[in-house]
Amino acid sequence: MSAVANSEEQEKTLVEIIEDGTAIIDPNKYTNFVASPKSGAIATFAGTTRDTFEGKRVVELRYEAYVSMAIRRLKSICSSARSSWNLDSIAVAHRLGTVPVGETSVFVAVSAVHRADAMEACRYVIDEIKASVPIWKKEVYANGEVWKENSEFLERRLGLELEKHEHGYCCGRKVKVDDDEEKLTERKNE
Amino acid sequence: MSAVANSEEQEKTLVEIIEDGTAIIDPNKYTNFVASPKSGAIATFAGTTRDTFEGKRVVELRYEAYVSMAIRRLKSICSSARSSWNLDSIAVAHRLGTVPVGETSVFVAVSAVHRADAMEACRYVIDEIKASVPIWKKEVYANGEVWKENSEFLERRLGLELEKHEHGYCCGRKVKVDDDEEKLTERKNE
Repeated sequence: MSAVANSEEQEKTLVEIIEDGTAIIDPNKYTNFVASPKSGAIATFAGTTRDTFEGKRVVELRYEAYVSMAIRRLKSICSSARSSWNLDSIAVAHRLGTVPVGETSVFVAVSAVHRADAMEACRYVIDEIKASVPIWKKEVYANGEVWKENSEFLERRLGLELEKHEHGYCCGRKVKVDDDEEKLTERKNE
Repeated sequence: MSAVANSEEQEKTLVEIIEDGTAIIDPNKYTNFVASPKSGAIATFAGTTRDTFEGKRVVELRYEAYVSMAIRRLKSICSSARSSWNLDSIAVAHRLGTVPVGETSVFVAVSAVHRADAMEACRYVIDEIKASVPIWKKEVYANGEVWKENSEFLERRLGLELEKHEHGYCCGRKVKVDDDEEKLTERKNE
């Protein structure tokens, strides 16, 4: 890639890891970043904390990241998306720390002349984030908490024959959770 | 479908044709409509007026619709999406009248527990809108204007063996456009 193309690509790519646990993700910021008179299509994806996981009531999620590697990997994903689709701008934001139910933890916005490019690239970017960016999620339930096993990330790592625990991180369960919340609630009410 | 399920589906579906030519589409309205503590994913698509089409400079787009049929068809598309994916809420808005460069003419937002459902359904909804909803686009260029031939819509109509001009509408070219804007500009500058 020429230096000019590389510089233009950088100007049209925004990657943010939001480390301040109280800052929310404002989708308008990222949608406005990718909007352009040249583009006829903007696709976005927001990943939000939902109130239930496998039948257990979720109170909040907490995210941790290997930040420098996460940013490098996010930029690489954006660059890779540009090589597969004809895109204008890409914006990606991921919150760290506590994300309460209903709030957005990750946001992707992609603009392009045509909608197929924008929508397919948006899907690719979020799939790649889940599969290959070192950000982990702890699910905090009404009756305990657990580091979520990210099956997509684990699959990719195994595929790359990376050793578990390398780089000092781990995605496995750290805390066992009582699977039967009703039982716990009953005990509380006794 | 039971009456209860049908009523819940209606509550979680928003379809709007915005006939006031000065009203913009506020994406937050539709994103907020689909957001829910039960959903972990929101996918959106915005179709915007771009400044160029086939090398010609676009000044604005103008949309016209067969409104009652468009609304019926939009609701049917949403219902059909629900039967293929596990969705929470769907919102669709389409502007009529003049949409200047950079502004949004159509917006789709879909929420679901999982991202694959939200993203695939969002793609399906916008593809179906382009292919089967009676809304037409006039492209206004610096040097003329043209009713855009919507190839997707025409293909579908031909597939359904519908007669051209039935219902009193037509998607073909109504005004010929000078394909060589430079030539026109040269003439103007003479």
